[in-house]
Amino acid sequence: MALITLTSDFGHADPYLSGVKGAIYQQLPVVQLVDISHEIEKHDIAQAAFIAKQAYQNFPEGTIHIIGVKPHANQSIEHVAIDYKGHYFIGADNGMFSLIFDEPPTKVISIALQDTGLINFPVRDVFAKAACHLARGGTIDLLGRPKEGILQMMVFEPIVQPSGIRGHIQYIDSYGNLITNVSYTLFQQVAQSREVAVSLRGARHEVRGLSANASHVPEGELAAYFGNSNFLELGINAGSASQLLGIRVNDSVMINFEDFL
Amino acid sequence: MALITLTSDFGHADPYLSGVKGAIYQQLPVVQLVDISHEIEKHDIAQAAFIAKQAYQNFPEGTIHIIGVKPHANQSIEHVAIDYKGHYFIGADNGMFSLIFDEPPTKVISIALQDTGLINFPVRDVFAKAACHLARGGTIDLLGRPKEGILQMMVFEPIVQPSGIRGHIQYIDSYGNLITNVSYTLFQQVAQSREVAVSLRGARHEVRGLSANASHVPEGELAAYFGNSNFLELGINAGSASQLLGIRVNDSVMINFEDFL
Amino acid sequence: MALITLTSDFGHADPYLSGVKGAIYQQLPVVQLVDISHEIEKHDIAQAAFIAKQAYQNFPEGTIHIIGVKPHANQSIEHVAIDYKGHYFIGADNGMFSLIFDEPPTKVISIALQDTGLINFPVRDVFAKAACHLARGGTIDLLGRPKEGILQMMVFEPIVQPSGIRGHIQYIDSYGNLITNVSYTLFQQVAQSREVAVSLRGARHEVRGLSANASHVPEGELAAYFGNSNFLELGINAGSASQLLGIRVNDSVMINFEDFL
Repeated sequence: MALITLTSDFGHADPYLSGVKGAIYQQLPVVQLVDISHEIEKHDIAQAAFIAKQAYQNFPEGTIHIIGVKPHANQSIEHVAIDYKGHYFIGADNGMFSLIFDEPPTKVISIALQDTGLINFPVRDVFAKAACHLARGGTIDLLGRPKEGILQMMVFEPIVQPSGIRGHIQYIDSYGNLITNVSYTLFQQVAQSREVAVSLRGARHEVRGLSANASHVPEGELAAYFGNSNFLELGINAGSASQLLGIRVNDSVMINFEDFL
Repeated sequence: MALITLTSDFGHADPYLSGVKGAIYQQLPVVQLVDISHEIEKHDIAQAAFIAKQAYQNFPEGTIHIIGVKPHANQSIEHVAIDYKGHYFIGADNGMFSLIFDEPPTKVISIALQDTGLINFPVRDVFAKAACHLARGGTIDLLGRPKEGILQMMVFEPIVQPSGIRGHIQYIDSYGNLITNVSYTLFQQVAQSREVAVSLRGARHEVRGLSANASHVPEGELAAYFGNSNFLELGINAGSASQLLGIRVNDSVMINFEDFL
Repeated sequence: MALITLTSDFGHADPYLSGVKGAIYQQLPVVQLVDISHEIEKHDIAQAAFIAKQAYQNFPEGTIHIIGVKPHANQSIEHVAIDYKGHYFIGADNGMFSLIFDEPPTKVISIALQDTGLINFPVRDVFAKAACHLARGGTIDLLGRPKEGILQMMVFEPIVQPSGIRGHIQYIDSYGNLITNVSYTLFQQVAQSREVAVSLRGARHEVRGLSANASHVPEGELAAYFGNSNFLELGINAGSASQLLGIRVNDSVMINFEDFL
């Protein structure tokens, strides 16, 4: 049974999400639909990319991922179907795919079912149609013509300094945990065998050392750890770090390394 | 595989929605359940009708639609199963069905599984049971006795004037787009070949001409267009028209037509 | 087709819920997943237990229920799989199961896939794996070693007095209905053939007699009734009792019985 996931900023109140699902069932009576999230901030393609990147890796190869955030095509933005690491991604090439992928995708197809200006609902009328084609076993090449690469979106990368790494908070989850943009790989490269201290808001809040996760420190205490996101996270056991410390997305975080004395 | 959709004001926190789903799986192990919306404003049958009407048309014929808003029966309100354009609708005949249908339904059955006053949960104990009967291929006639027509609910229709149409906002979606009660058909009849200007809050906000959709105007600009709802909509590209203009449901909208000079 | 339900405090915005679903589909391509609720208050195992208890009884025997609230294991809390009345429950033995069950469970297995401190995501990496084992028809015994009983959690029980019962509000649903902790069984034992009056906030709000449900009194009026929860509930027809009367969870409720005159 084909597996199609849906990520969007539709919310759950309007008739848009069910419109897409109904259209899929019209074309494909037997299919497994899975909601990733429909609570992406309106028009926020960076957040959509973060969520989709975290989520897709849990799904089996061959899964088809529809991403319906800023879905409209125009002169510079095309609708695309992408083969990346055995997964299919369908959406508007508005920059978000460059944030989801760590490597260039295997294949990018500009979908020929173009939004003509008469179509107001590309997630239903373009993306769902393309997904059903793939779900029925159709080849990605039949969806349109090949395209060279995807639109790149610039993001602020962490800055490596001799004494540490300066990064920022890229996502705050519903528990109030702070997810930085410092990956495990970068952390390991810079840390070497040195001890670590993570500080927020200047040095007003500091954590020394890493924990396995937020639940491994006493309740109410701040912990730094590598979570499932594969990024350095900060969380308070049984509390909201975001609320208690007043931290927001894009706030900076400083990771300092010190030699053992 | 039978397809059953669910629309309600249950929300997602309480054990009510899953109670209905569990009861369906008890009776019918293999079935496709699709949530339309469970965020209908509490007891708001006009909103439920709007959402259900927008959504059902995307589903294949034969789909069974359960609507659980104001579901209790009493001396004047019966539980009904309805055959309309090849779709089945199940709910309380409290007026909402008259807002969903454009034509008289093919068949209306008063469900014999009446709420006796001992049943506190008709969506589970009456609607889900009736839906499972239909999903197993049972005929609608077996659910009870035929009923003449459905309860009519009065709504304010747009007023046609020589120079234009006075309507109102019937729904505001989660993007802040304003959906009027002026249908494409009515608009075309009145517009003829004249130019159009749409104004909100007296003449404080005005849009001249129609766009294909909100994304076809510069960001931050107001557009008027016919969306998927088949009603005239107003939206701000990448912004919330409702918030930015302070417009709410039931606010009036004036559509003026002018001859080409 | 195996049926797995999911209850958690994940919310719907983060990539956690879909991470668990993706992992299940990786292991088990054909399975029916049903969301009970993911809007449990963060870390609130009493609320999780209330919701899970209300919901599971609607599902067929053999259903597997994953509960992902306070899911981390430690020296005193184990991950368990439980056979209770033909249903399977999987979660952390943190006290919540003692609130779900009315009788001792048939079997409790301490899951051998222990959280080693390296696993940050036990709902995905332990609970979902155990659920897939059961869904494939594997025996519960293979998941680990048997365990004597479950962790008991203390709750305030209603106090029976000669003239009545003193209880409290244990849950307020999204309609604002007040669900007390006074069960139908206890009520019947104490009530005998006496008349009943239920009062809130001292005697500021009082209801005399029971209704079939909130919709059986005039709109705006307070009713006391036994709802689907099997607990005494108070609700206002077409209104929010919680908001209108200013009642919150844990507020006390007094049930007075009087002989017929």
